[in-house]
Amino acid sequence: MRYVTGGIALGAALALGGLVGIGTSASAAPTPIPPAHTQSLYAPSALVLTVGQGDSAAQAGVQRAVTLTCTPKATGSHPDASGACAQLRAAGGDFDKITTIKSGTFCTREWNPIVVTAQGVWEGKRVSYEHTFANPCEMKAGKGTVFEF
Amino acid sequence: MRYVTGGIALGAALALGGLVGIGTSASAAPTPIPPAHTQSLYAPSALVLTVGQGDSAAQAGVQRAVTLTCTPKATGSHPDASGACAQLRAAGGDFDKITTIKSGTFCTREWNPIVVTAQGVWEGKRVSYEHTFANPCEMKAGKGTVFEF
Repeated sequence: MRYVTGGIALGAALALGGLVGIGTSASAAPTPIPPAHTQSLYAPSALVLTVGQGDSAAQAGVQRAVTLTCTPKATGSHPDASGACAQLRAAGGDFDKITTIKSGTFCTREWNPIVVTAQGVWEGKRVSYEHTFANPCEMKAGKGTVFEF
Repeated sequence: MRYVTGGIALGAALALGGLVGIGTSASAAPTPIPPAHTQSLYAPSALVLTVGQGDSAAQAGVQRAVTLTCTPKATGSHPDASGACAQLRAAGGDFDKITTIKSGTFCTREWNPIVVTAQGVWEGKRVSYEHTFANPCEMKAGKGTVFEF
């Protein structure tokens, strides 16, 4: 009986060795990114928002630029980071919802364009947004808290 | 005398009215962007930096993202904003200078890519930078202070 038990133990040991072997070869595979100072348990939300005068971001200079971080707390150089984060959360991160001009707004059709951009990350997803307001009146009506800086 | 004084007062009122009139007609011309809370006298530098695993930013998820503002002072969610801004200034804002791996660095040729990105504005100019390190060893050698987060 002892011999049989020993055989089982040996078998178990070999099986275990096999498992360890598999583990070792797995760790030789692609190494993950080393732990970071700011390793987070939440999806990152970090943005740069800009305002510039012109038809498009490619052509317009940057007049003002601010940063906005919404997780774990609202912060950044945005003058109202809390308000901007709240508005973005309410819009589900859809910038078009922010810049849509409410019905009942009356502006002239003057063409004096202002470009706003948002780049970075919203809840872990890359963002590259650009919107052109035809003139300052439309911008005033559509900038929301997000582009109020 | 009272009449004359009244006449002068009327003239002054008319002159003042004229000035007001000029002011009004001028404001009908293209209106500049209204004064901002954070109107700056310096060219803005505001960035979002990301790290993700994958071949390219389009394909890679975002694992970490931080903001970095360098003017008027170094700030943001970057763990070493001062160091990162100093390195960027020394490189003249050229991100390729940051991510170039120094000669004498030895890494395996393993393909386990990590993508770093920088988006936003550096000294008033738009930035959209992406660089792929072949593996964590190359990233360690080329991330500098800027991509150390």
